[in-house]
Amino acid sequence: MAVDSYVALAGGVGGAKMAHGLAATISPGKLTVIVNTADDFEHLGLHVSPDLDTVMYTLAGLQNAETGWGLVDESWKFLDALERLGGETWFRLGDRDLATHVERTRRLRAGQNLSAITEEFCASLGVTVRVLPMTDDPVRTMVLTYGGTMTFQEYFVRQQCRPAVHGFRFDGSDVAQFHPSAVDALQAEDLAAVVICPSNPYVSIAPILALDGAREWVRTSPAPVIAVSPIVGGAALKGPAAKMMIELGENPSGETVASVYDGLLDGIVLDHVDAAEVESIEARGLRVLLTNTVMHSSADRARLGTEIRAFAAEFAGAGVGS
Amino acid sequence: MAVDSYVALAGGVGGAKMAHGLAATISPGKLTVIVNTADDFEHLGLHVSPDLDTVMYTLAGLQNAETGWGLVDESWKFLDALERLGGETWFRLGDRDLATHVERTRRLRAGQNLSAITEEFCASLGVTVRVLPMTDDPVRTMVLTYGGTMTFQEYFVRQQCRPAVHGFRFDGSDVAQFHPSAVDALQAEDLAAVVICPSNPYVSIAPILALDGAREWVRTSPAPVIAVSPIVGGAALKGPAAKMMIELGENPSGETVASVYDGLLDGIVLDHVDAAEVESIEARGLRVLLTNTVMHSSADRARLGTEIRAFAAEFAGAGVGS
Repeated sequence: MAVDSYVALAGGVGGAKMAHGLAATISPGKLTVIVNTADDFEHLGLHVSPDLDTVMYTLAGLQNAETGWGLVDESWKFLDALERLGGETWFRLGDRDLATHVERTRRLRAGQNLSAITEEFCASLGVTVRVLPMTDDPVRTMVLTYGGTMTFQEYFVRQQCRPAVHGFRFDGSDVAQFHPSAVDALQAEDLAAVVICPSNPYVSIAPILALDGAREWVRTSPAPVIAVSPIVGGAALKGPAAKMMIELGENPSGETVASVYDGLLDGIVLDHVDAAEVESIEARGLRVLLTNTVMHSSADRARLGTEIRAFAAEFAGAGVGS
Repeated sequence: MAVDSYVALAGGVGGAKMAHGLAATISPGKLTVIVNTADDFEHLGLHVSPDLDTVMYTLAGLQNAETGWGLVDESWKFLDALERLGGETWFRLGDRDLATHVERTRRLRAGQNLSAITEEFCASLGVTVRVLPMTDDPVRTMVLTYGGTMTFQEYFVRQQCRPAVHGFRFDGSDVAQFHPSAVDALQAEDLAAVVICPSNPYVSIAPILALDGAREWVRTSPAPVIAVSPIVGGAALKGPAAKMMIELGENPSGETVASVYDGLLDGIVLDHVDAAEVESIEARGLRVLLTNTVMHSSADRARLGTEIRAFAAEFAGAGVGS
């Protein structure tokens, strides 16, 4: 049997780009992206799933490359009109994007679950990758800051990541069920690799791993587990990952990424600029792929995807995960 | 005390134009428009109030004159995206218009009532006329057709008024409360006239009058009750009023309008083309104002508003309504 299926764990932008790069080199139907839903929230009475949408839009080639979120060729008439009516406009909902939230909310209220809705949306948008919410149950990231505890969107959008953090809580993750299809994908006999995308370890990947059994399913999968570091040269490519590391008393580095995923990883992908870290990470027993991890273009994404597949293949026969 | 306050009963487009014409000649705060809400419906999980919005948008000068519904300078990105996701697009929700429905729905779910929301929306849009839903309770017009019973929007939008009707039912009107502010406005000592706008008598005005006590409050108001006929030369200016009259075995005419409002009216406003009906209507004991009732422009609306005020003043001292 060909060992050619892949699982990716992903949050928003970085995860979406990595998933897109992997998708470019993997047969349709052979890539499952397990997406964080802990930053989902209810806004204006609509269920918004920011990470799920970023992944879905990116895989459909519809993402807005400028903003990093939302849709390309977006317009803002809805928001203008809402502002005039005195509505809340701090969370930017574009006219096209709104269709996703309205229709998703309608279907959720009609009793359909989030994963089935996502599957149908992906089919409508021509996405052949399996995009899977980590769970169909509600989980909500709460950010513990020195300015108080707040929801993720309050922290991320409204306060623009300004408050210093001292921890995180994933409300609901004690009872939410890790998606059965995620378990199936992680147990698949033809699994070639589990890729932890260059997403924020604390607020994009940790909520997935916090689900009951999820960490163990990843750890015991029959394939190497490879993280792509979201930290390049001491900074996060996007978002507050590096800032959070500093606030939590850690050095923003690939090594900190490796330690957050301690016990899970077989390999890690670092950018060339972080070559100095290779030795200490290898001392932890991890293999390191040193390459260009910054994905400016679709070609960058696909090239990185291909390199990660080759890197994963190196583990074959080395007894990893088997 | 100056007798200078007015009440208008209104449905959609015709009612909105008439309300606009009256508003142009009446002091701010002195006009209350009681609006049909029986064609409100839930669509895509949103509470849509078509007549209320048409009146509000028209009074704000924001209505789409071409379509007769929705907003001027509207765009349709939301609907395009919704179609792509496989959502229902038969009811045309524009990007700007959507803000009204989303924000109204959010506020209703938060426990605010429809009249309070409408008041705040009107304030936001600079509307100084008091726009009052006939009730804060749910009432739903059901159209009884030879093709079965259906909701108003199913009949009006989806089936484009094609099924022949044999009656109407206003579900919920037995328990819905006629808005207390509507009662107050109809009882006001300074009331100069109650104007029944040129709206559909069966599906725009009848649901208002069907509310408990509403017909009596109109009938016993201390001012003349004047209907503006929506039928001109045997046809409805807009919508299915004439078609319905024919299907119900009536002649589409001002006289049929008068008979639908039997026992309520002191006067009726007819278009010049219906001059032949004056005699028979006067024989019913009604006064008739014969004028141009077709409102092509804002000037037409204001002129008609002024004429109706003068017509109402003729009843003063004639013992009408006192």
